[in-house]
Amino acid sequence: MSYAELSREELEALKAALEAEYAEHCAKGLALNMARGKPGADQLALSLPMLDCVNATTELFAEDGTDCRNYGVMDGIPEAKRLMASIMDHDAERVCVFGNSSLNIMYDLVSHGMLYGYLGAPAWKTLPEIAWICPSPGYDRHFAICEQLGIRMIPVRMTETGPDMDEVERIAASDASVKGIWCVPQYSNPTGAVYSDEVVRRLASMECAAEDFRIFWDNAYCVHHLYEGREAHVADIAAACEASGHPDRYFKFASTSKVTFPGAGIAAVAASAANIAEIKSRVGVQTVGYDKLNQLRHVKFLGDANGMAEHMKKHAAIIAPKFDMVLDMLEAGLEGVGATWSKPDGGYFISFEGLPGTAKRTVALAKEAGVTMTGAGATWPYKNDPRDTNIRIAPTLPPMNELEQAMEVFVCCVKLASVEALLAE
Amino acid sequence: MSYAELSREELEALKAALEAEYAEHCAKGLALNMARGKPGADQLALSLPMLDCVNATTELFAEDGTDCRNYGVMDGIPEAKRLMASIMDHDAERVCVFGNSSLNIMYDLVSHGMLYGYLGAPAWKTLPEIAWICPSPGYDRHFAICEQLGIRMIPVRMTETGPDMDEVERIAASDASVKGIWCVPQYSNPTGAVYSDEVVRRLASMECAAEDFRIFWDNAYCVHHLYEGREAHVADIAAACEASGHPDRYFKFASTSKVTFPGAGIAAVAASAANIAEIKSRVGVQTVGYDKLNQLRHVKFLGDANGMAEHMKKHAAIIAPKFDMVLDMLEAGLEGVGATWSKPDGGYFISFEGLPGTAKRTVALAKEAGVTMTGAGATWPYKNDPRDTNIRIAPTLPPMNELEQAMEVFVCCVKLASVEALLAE
Repeated sequence: MSYAELSREELEALKAALEAEYAEHCAKGLALNMARGKPGADQLALSLPMLDCVNATTELFAEDGTDCRNYGVMDGIPEAKRLMASIMDHDAERVCVFGNSSLNIMYDLVSHGMLYGYLGAPAWKTLPEIAWICPSPGYDRHFAICEQLGIRMIPVRMTETGPDMDEVERIAASDASVKGIWCVPQYSNPTGAVYSDEVVRRLASMECAAEDFRIFWDNAYCVHHLYEGREAHVADIAAACEASGHPDRYFKFASTSKVTFPGAGIAAVAASAANIAEIKSRVGVQTVGYDKLNQLRHVKFLGDANGMAEHMKKHAAIIAPKFDMVLDMLEAGLEGVGATWSKPDGGYFISFEGLPGTAKRTVALAKEAGVTMTGAGATWPYKNDPRDTNIRIAPTLPPMNELEQAMEVFVCCVKLASVEALLAE
Repeated sequence: MSYAELSREELEALKAALEAEYAEHCAKGLALNMARGKPGADQLALSLPMLDCVNATTELFAEDGTDCRNYGVMDGIPEAKRLMASIMDHDAERVCVFGNSSLNIMYDLVSHGMLYGYLGAPAWKTLPEIAWICPSPGYDRHFAICEQLGIRMIPVRMTETGPDMDEVERIAASDASVKGIWCVPQYSNPTGAVYSDEVVRRLASMECAAEDFRIFWDNAYCVHHLYEGREAHVADIAAACEASGHPDRYFKFASTSKVTFPGAGIAAVAASAANIAEIKSRVGVQTVGYDKLNQLRHVKFLGDANGMAEHMKKHAAIIAPKFDMVLDMLEAGLEGVGATWSKPDGGYFISFEGLPGTAKRTVALAKEAGVTMTGAGATWPYKNDPRDTNIRIAPTLPPMNELEQAMEVFVCCVKLASVEALLAE
């Protein structure tokens, strides 16, 4: 049965049945939350032993003799730099480990562009307009940074292998006010897309009207695989930029927020030697240094890239069944509706595409029934999803039984909103 | 014996004797550091038990049920807000507890003024010039923020009760480009001055040409007393601003960097309700939140204001003897030279005033003999001490025996530089 082929009478009958089902969901008084990509309690428990790695009796000196309890060291203790470098495909010498938030490092770097400019180029505040390429659907907090700083966002369609590169190349080449692009290259937020080697190569080598154009390479999910044997590994943007003669074009970011504890993890930036030198000199005015005890805690707990990979398998064992259940319920419940969704191999989200004009209504219906989803539109610049189709599903936080309940409600809401939309045509 | 009354011959003889003594110091091959206000190892040991307050088996929920291991909470867990509010003389509802660095909060707020403006006033980046009042000698890292952001610094002389308020009032009233003032109101860096009630009242009530003028009230040493019975307590700038009809004029800052661990402490800002709302909305774009586990760790260890005060007495017991020894050695060694120095009741520094034109030379001589002091001039905007007299002495880091050696060298260098200066007149 395809919804598109139903007669008006059949749609009306279906609507009545769905409204009855929806009323039953509403009557349950649910209060479930799938809004954000937060780890569940069982995932957080995986990292509890880390809290014992630094205590009153442990050695609190870094390998270079730095007393991690005192002031000093702007760019991270050597062993923390090495650990983060190992998951960022980078030389540890050109990695800075800072505080608990990679988003904060990204914000600081965009604001540095605005206030000071990069590597001798004019500060953006002196220019009439600044614009940014925003592959969409994308990460709402990236877009919020641009919006707050008054940077004009240009949405570009995401494909299964990264942003539409014809569009990206056209925009970057033609407009010197375009200073950057947001990329979540591996298990993209929210679509789960993995950038192809070809996309990485084209981003690195494309002609940019702005000499100070920067690729903000937010590799938030670099070690966040869901299924053994299906691990993605995106090509190294640094190597690609160097190979094409644009060694300063990228900033790479990563954090342990979804490895250990969100909010109490460590975050890092990797870049060219020139960019790293500039970052250090500017951040050195901003703070006296970051939490080295927490860096030490992470190194003692995770060890190296192998230790990190083993730890991530434990996360996958907890969350892959959640992804599987969501995908199964969408598959079983939405046959014929005409909706589509991503089937990611990693990351934190499933990206749902409903019929045109139904996303806002679906999220509102779910909310009314006690199930909070990410706001419809949040995945687009200015919260403006032009076709009102995309909903980000975040399966990790609720326990399995709650997730099942929430998805039952969601499936019902999708169907009801779809029928309503078809009847309104 | 007063150096100023010595004949040329007597000065020459003295110089020869001092050069011989100086050569002996140089021959020792010392490597001592008094450059920064860093706690010593024995002070750091005081807070080691804090590392056991949060471990794999402790309750990791805040009193409002927040899971401190996960995302969420922008402005700090309630009990951390209450703890910081208690030492900041503030209502906990109008306190934000952020990351590990109050300097970073200050930088962010100055850059917010530049990028966005405060409470509806124009962003400073749209104005032709921004200027700042800098009581001097003052804190070099405050000045570095202004310098990096291209803010013109106007030095104003520090007195024993705060900045020269006639000057401050004149500048603030006459120039709308003057947007702020740096204040370390209690045990000022480096002079140890405590702002008088009169100075606090005048800062709060003075006429400002800029409606968005802000007092950056860096109460870094609010609980950092050296001697029991001589505790200072500066008047509350918030109450003074409210009483004079300027409730939004101040930002207060404090941290536990010199209470627990520098770099691994917690930092807070306190302000009016309107300012706090604006700060939260802006910081909420910058980061997903700060380290709540470290906030919890601090609350469990320090408890409340009384617990903090008891803990600070242990610091005082370690560092007061260091201050006493430095003061005794200056007193005994520099009789008749004509130098002066502060005798603080708290904080981290002794401010030394040598003869005009001798500070740079003294620090260079000490460096040559293996004793690193804070760079001469660092305590003035643009590192420009107009009379070249001020040297910041930081007695806390070296153990007593090293401090004694360092001060012997310093006293010798002061005398030698003074004699050289008098001979050159």
